[in-house]
Amino acid sequence: MHPSQILNTAIETHHPAAAACLSALGRRMFFPIGIPAQAAQAKSAKINATIGQLTNGHGAALPLAAIADHLRDISLEDTTLYSPQGGNKALRAAWGEHLAKKGDGPMTSPFCTVGLTHGLSLLADLFVDNDTDVILPSPGWGNYDHIFGVKAGGRIHRYPVFDDGIFDPNAMSTALEKIQNKGVVLLNFPGNPTGYTPTPEQLAPWLEAIRNCEKPIVVICDDAYAGFVYEPGHLDRSPFHDLADADPNRVLTVKVDGATKELCFFGGRVGFVSFGTSGEAGQALDTKIKGMARATVSTGPAVSQALVLSALNSPDLAKQQADIFALSLKRYRSLKRCLAEAKIDTLPFNSGFFALIPVKGDPETLRLNLLNDGVGVVAFPQHGAIRVAFSSIANDDIPKLVNALAKHIERQI
Amino acid sequence: MHPSQILNTAIETHHPAAAACLSALGRRMFFPIGIPAQAAQAKSAKINATIGQLTNGHGAALPLAAIADHLRDISLEDTTLYSPQGGNKALRAAWGEHLAKKGDGPMTSPFCTVGLTHGLSLLADLFVDNDTDVILPSPGWGNYDHIFGVKAGGRIHRYPVFDDGIFDPNAMSTALEKIQNKGVVLLNFPGNPTGYTPTPEQLAPWLEAIRNCEKPIVVICDDAYAGFVYEPGHLDRSPFHDLADADPNRVLTVKVDGATKELCFFGGRVGFVSFGTSGEAGQALDTKIKGMARATVSTGPAVSQALVLSALNSPDLAKQQADIFALSLKRYRSLKRCLAEAKIDTLPFNSGFFALIPVKGDPETLRLNLLNDGVGVVAFPQHGAIRVAFSSIANDDIPKLVNALAKHIERQI
Repeated sequence: MHPSQILNTAIETHHPAAAACLSALGRRMFFPIGIPAQAAQAKSAKINATIGQLTNGHGAALPLAAIADHLRDISLEDTTLYSPQGGNKALRAAWGEHLAKKGDGPMTSPFCTVGLTHGLSLLADLFVDNDTDVILPSPGWGNYDHIFGVKAGGRIHRYPVFDDGIFDPNAMSTALEKIQNKGVVLLNFPGNPTGYTPTPEQLAPWLEAIRNCEKPIVVICDDAYAGFVYEPGHLDRSPFHDLADADPNRVLTVKVDGATKELCFFGGRVGFVSFGTSGEAGQALDTKIKGMARATVSTGPAVSQALVLSALNSPDLAKQQADIFALSLKRYRSLKRCLAEAKIDTLPFNSGFFALIPVKGDPETLRLNLLNDGVGVVAFPQHGAIRVAFSSIANDDIPKLVNALAKHIERQI
Repeated sequence: MHPSQILNTAIETHHPAAAACLSALGRRMFFPIGIPAQAAQAKSAKINATIGQLTNGHGAALPLAAIADHLRDISLEDTTLYSPQGGNKALRAAWGEHLAKKGDGPMTSPFCTVGLTHGLSLLADLFVDNDTDVILPSPGWGNYDHIFGVKAGGRIHRYPVFDDGIFDPNAMSTALEKIQNKGVVLLNFPGNPTGYTPTPEQLAPWLEAIRNCEKPIVVICDDAYAGFVYEPGHLDRSPFHDLADADPNRVLTVKVDGATKELCFFGGRVGFVSFGTSGEAGQALDTKIKGMARATVSTGPAVSQALVLSALNSPDLAKQQADIFALSLKRYRSLKRCLAEAKIDTLPFNSGFFALIPVKGDPETLRLNLLNDGVGVVAFPQHGAIRVAFSSIANDDIPKLVNALAKHIERQI
């Protein structure tokens, strides 16, 4: 039997919804037993002439000093030699422990990707073709359309996160009706560009609709902004943990997250994909995504992975993250207060890095007027709104930003 | 007009062969004018609230100390914040200068990828679909089949690099006849797994065949091992430089290379794609590949890119590279001498990291026997050969490795 067929059978048997959702490419994908597999077997050989990387002959790295001189107190092997397919193993284990603190449902070992986009793109390759209905949030990240629509060729549908400025309890059940044969559903809390995270009560009807979906679906939880929730009473963990134990005949839940925002390492490009399943189906999906990654980037950046692993192992990490959270919370509160004082309405926001402000008139004109006054924001003409990233402005500048907003928003009316 | 159509028209007009070779996905690809474009416009705004990355509000990075403490004498902005789409601009310029030393044909600014595999994969996305004949070297890197065949769905054909142990002058013209409508041709010198680089005279009939190909083709020069040529008289630069000025109605030549081997930074994942064209077609192809990368990884690892840029700017780089070359040359010469003394025949090798040794009997059995004696090599049953990576063994171990080879190869007869 072809290796892809062995994987497909394992997935069909143990997680039927996942099998039903595989794209044509996803079905034919496997991990070739090539050099990486033979190199893994030779790992403890005294003379290991398997891998095409230049070492001292005993496994030690021989990096150029021009590179190594910039690295300190970190293994040169872990940073400058190849990381294994799927990522640094200690890092995968450490991230798995990090996630296990939030829930104990079925979950595969986090598969290390080149930032979260790569994880989303691999899932699109595995599960999206022109027979897939892809259900995306609106407002939502524009790159979802590009990944799942333009590149993967899925049929894109958008569900409203808000109805008349309030979280829409019926949005998910209505959206799921659009699925003809198989679907991919994207959840993103805290949201980009909304900066919104619902309460558990608000999300309940969405989870109910997903659990009871008539057609097989893959639910992708994009948890890029995990941890940045500023108001009590709102979700303090990913919906992944509530959906991972859904009926495997109906739903496969997948978690996409990473160090980009959670550890403020934007330039690192360390993301993870964890499937909400276990056993043989989990192993087969891990092999499928490893095969897909082998065909897109081979391994990810070892230096970034080693830096993230070191951070996760640092006894000081919690304090450093708390400092970043406190800084972000302060900006959030300033922005909330200044907007209220200026009587500028926003869509609900309580988390993440953004606030979304509906505007009368053309958001693009407003954006250009603000730019003339030295204030950069992002226009979303399709939502009649502008997005303010309070993550990237100093606290002292927030009143000035709101003043500029107030001046130009009034002009538009 | 849709943005993809504008790009397609520019490519059709200025580089017809490239347009004729685009896959269905390649034709519909464009770069969405989303947040990155608006953020670029706001770069000099005093208050820049465009990008979702956490900074001090004035553009300075706020990395966790648990990450930043491992970096020294290098910009925290360049290493821990997002790099631009397509890569660090100074790095792209520096790599372009590095390449310009070898030839002055048309060439786009090197597009930065996540290692060379990502470059090959992006080119497969742009140019390979199930109507593409993909012409690969044999022996050749197994991952080519995975990228261009399993993932991209092209029809794979293999051309022999050697005929009866000698570089085959007719291999390319024969292989090109297999192209039905459009083709992708892969050249890889120094080769993996062959470790071979031809002389200019040997390569001449291949270049002639490519220049005169009747069907439109994209020629990809995989120059992973550039610079590691140990014998005088063999190619001292990529075939890219001889093909970049081929008739744009027939051929598009593309260079794929990077820091992985050239700068011994295996864990960095810094590769480049440069198209052998210029002007409007070059700009359009750069936009197409940028759109494709946006849908696969978004940006690449900034920390790796910053380290490579720093190395390229180091006044000591040439000496450090010369030391690495000298070490590699010494291992090459030891292996050549020991194999000759042991009367073990090889396929011709003169460059790169590998030697390929044909064996009587089953290469996989030989591999396992060697492994039992503590010697790891890679078996290529499809070529009746094993591959020795002399890049990863100490000079002192080479006689031992050859002794083990001699012992087990004899047993096989």
